[in-house]
Amino acid sequence: MKLLLLNEDEVMLRVGRLTAAMRLQKIDMALIQDNAMKYYLTGRVFAGWIMVRCDGEMRWFVRRPNHVVGDKLFHVRKPEEITSQLNDGFLAGVETIGFEFRTLSVADYNRLSAIFENLVVVDLSPVIMAARAVKTAHEINMMTRSGQLQTEVYESIPSLYHPGMTDIELQIDIERELRRHGCLGQFRIAGDSMELFMANILAGDNADNPTPYDFAMGGEGINPSLPVGANGDVIVEGTTVMVDANGNFTGYMTDMTRTFAVGDIPAEARVAHELSIEICNALSAAACPGIKASQLYEMAVDMVDEAGLRDFFMGHRQQAGFIGHGLGIEINEAPVIAPRSRDVIQPGNVFALEPKFVIPGVGAVGIENTYVVLPECSDQATRKLTNAPEQLINLV
Amino acid sequence: MKLLLLNEDEVMLRVGRLTAAMRLQKIDMALIQDNAMKYYLTGRVFAGWIMVRCDGEMRWFVRRPNHVVGDKLFHVRKPEEITSQLNDGFLAGVETIGFEFRTLSVADYNRLSAIFENLVVVDLSPVIMAARAVKTAHEINMMTRSGQLQTEVYESIPSLYHPGMTDIELQIDIERELRRHGCLGQFRIAGDSMELFMANILAGDNADNPTPYDFAMGGEGINPSLPVGANGDVIVEGTTVMVDANGNFTGYMTDMTRTFAVGDIPAEARVAHELSIEICNALSAAACPGIKASQLYEMAVDMVDEAGLRDFFMGHRQQAGFIGHGLGIEINEAPVIAPRSRDVIQPGNVFALEPKFVIPGVGAVGIENTYVVLPECSDQATRKLTNAPEQLINLV
Repeated sequence: MKLLLLNEDEVMLRVGRLTAAMRLQKIDMALIQDNAMKYYLTGRVFAGWIMVRCDGEMRWFVRRPNHVVGDKLFHVRKPEEITSQLNDGFLAGVETIGFEFRTLSVADYNRLSAIFENLVVVDLSPVIMAARAVKTAHEINMMTRSGQLQTEVYESIPSLYHPGMTDIELQIDIERELRRHGCLGQFRIAGDSMELFMANILAGDNADNPTPYDFAMGGEGINPSLPVGANGDVIVEGTTVMVDANGNFTGYMTDMTRTFAVGDIPAEARVAHELSIEICNALSAAACPGIKASQLYEMAVDMVDEAGLRDFFMGHRQQAGFIGHGLGIEINEAPVIAPRSRDVIQPGNVFALEPKFVIPGVGAVGIENTYVVLPECSDQATRKLTNAPEQLINLV
Repeated sequence: MKLLLLNEDEVMLRVGRLTAAMRLQKIDMALIQDNAMKYYLTGRVFAGWIMVRCDGEMRWFVRRPNHVVGDKLFHVRKPEEITSQLNDGFLAGVETIGFEFRTLSVADYNRLSAIFENLVVVDLSPVIMAARAVKTAHEINMMTRSGQLQTEVYESIPSLYHPGMTDIELQIDIERELRRHGCLGQFRIAGDSMELFMANILAGDNADNPTPYDFAMGGEGINPSLPVGANGDVIVEGTTVMVDANGNFTGYMTDMTRTFAVGDIPAEARVAHELSIEICNALSAAACPGIKASQLYEMAVDMVDEAGLRDFFMGHRQQAGFIGHGLGIEINEAPVIAPRSRDVIQPGNVFALEPKFVIPGVGAVGIENTYVVLPECSDQATRKLTNAPEQLINLV
């Protein structure tokens, strides 16, 4: 079984992005351990390490599975066996080595840095974020496919609803549809302490329950060990149901939110929902290469202020400090669409916009879409990957 | 909203276990960031930190949710704000501070150690493992409840099967039943790089596909970004279906595996399945306080050798190096039942035993149960928490 599931050109393209970012930061060698990054560089997840020299020369060290083969691939049982395979000059001239500080545990860092005790260890995580922020055509194809499948499932949601059901019952039926369409379930999230199972379904006032997590929206959850999302309340007339469910069908995720209305809901909620669509349209049209992510955030806030809806924007009792985020293999890649973001939009960025509102007594409204930034900036800077209808849809 | 969801006696009991282990290792202060450990000490997950002095004095620092209150609880926006709340002598005499090296990222370590630059930072993870290895009566009640609900779902599995379905279709229906019984879905696993969605369902020869993960069993998965478990093959006559599905119904997990036969399967597979039951019975009876976990492992291997089934034990093309593991809030707590384990069985330990076999051409056989170690050692050292029928059950 060959290790590499990507063709050679694709691997070279990705390695090229990584090493270009390494050279900018004067990092001579990268040591990769994180699953997301191994998937990026090989098209599969395995236990072990990848070493990448800044000139693109690579070595693969595999612990498991035990039956993969490849050029310059070595089977090792533990990381201490890596160095004995490096006597061929691979380390010549190498002074700095980058580890993934955002995902590597202190225990693993201590073990790995002892192995490379003659090298200066620096943080590779910003370099990885920079490299992965610009997707290849192959990656965009994977995300396009995820968006298509996620859209199919979202279009089936009204048929899953029946009056009297609880939010968690609806969620379970949506989870089943996602899975039957090939959703992998697994939800890779960059950043510590983020936990969510499959979907965040918010019905009525539960949307205003603050969570510990740095998600855009809240919810009490059904157990204090996982305090987010649906809480088991019956879905009632005059409220909204917001669905933000897992779009990982290919190893690459899209992110989409749609909102449903149960019976009549107040005009204020409908207005806020329309504003969310308008913000998505305005920002996705304006996100030309070179624009600052923080400018997009400010555009959104200006529109919200003009409508007088700031108190309800991105939450009510607790408000989130961003309106969008990059994504790909993981949620929360670059760019971050937030007031103090230093990211600048580039062609090939893929990001989700999720300008949402929580209206007390009604629930959450708004949408979320995933967009890819086009190479040329015209009237429309991006292409949308998540194409389910955006208007409020009545559940009956 | 009060921070603590546990009563004061329960919190004191748990903090007492932690601080006793800290004093043994001469750690003056603990800084807790990991969600699993925050859940252990408060009964809820929140964003922030807990500081525990080795005499049991505590401080809570909460980033989110923003509306919890409590004694000696401070709201902070970032970790650098912690120290300004510690002018009351809380740090007097403190020289060493423990961080969770197994879960804390290098990036967070660097940030936190700069805040406590006058203290010696040491590894708290072994202390946490030791403290949590012995469950309280309340924790055992939570696990008993998880085991009851997991058992109910397992008993419904034959009714979910129909001839011609694929392994992933069966898995999706089992997932739905789990969720409808209150399963939280989330699967907390101690240790890096472990990924699994809800369940590991292995039908036929897919059981012999090695995975990158350190699980007992394998499977190709439906996508190389998550290469474990069901692979979409149709379930066929003459093979087995092994079900090892998520038992997290309460924030505490039980772990149970059962195996189903489709039509006639070879005698060798039936013999191996019976041996798995016998190993579970023998080890769970013998696991008296004071016995070494490694002795339990050797007992199992002796029984397997005597039956001449070593080539199929714990996998075939790739074999796992353990037959059991502690569990509670997470999978892979202490004790580990493995040849070089240094763990010694204690009253209140909860562990899963999973002596499994992979028979080429047939599939995986064997069972897994979760056991709690009783205070007094009699004929039966443990109580079983997972009580679905253990014999091979025919799927028709």
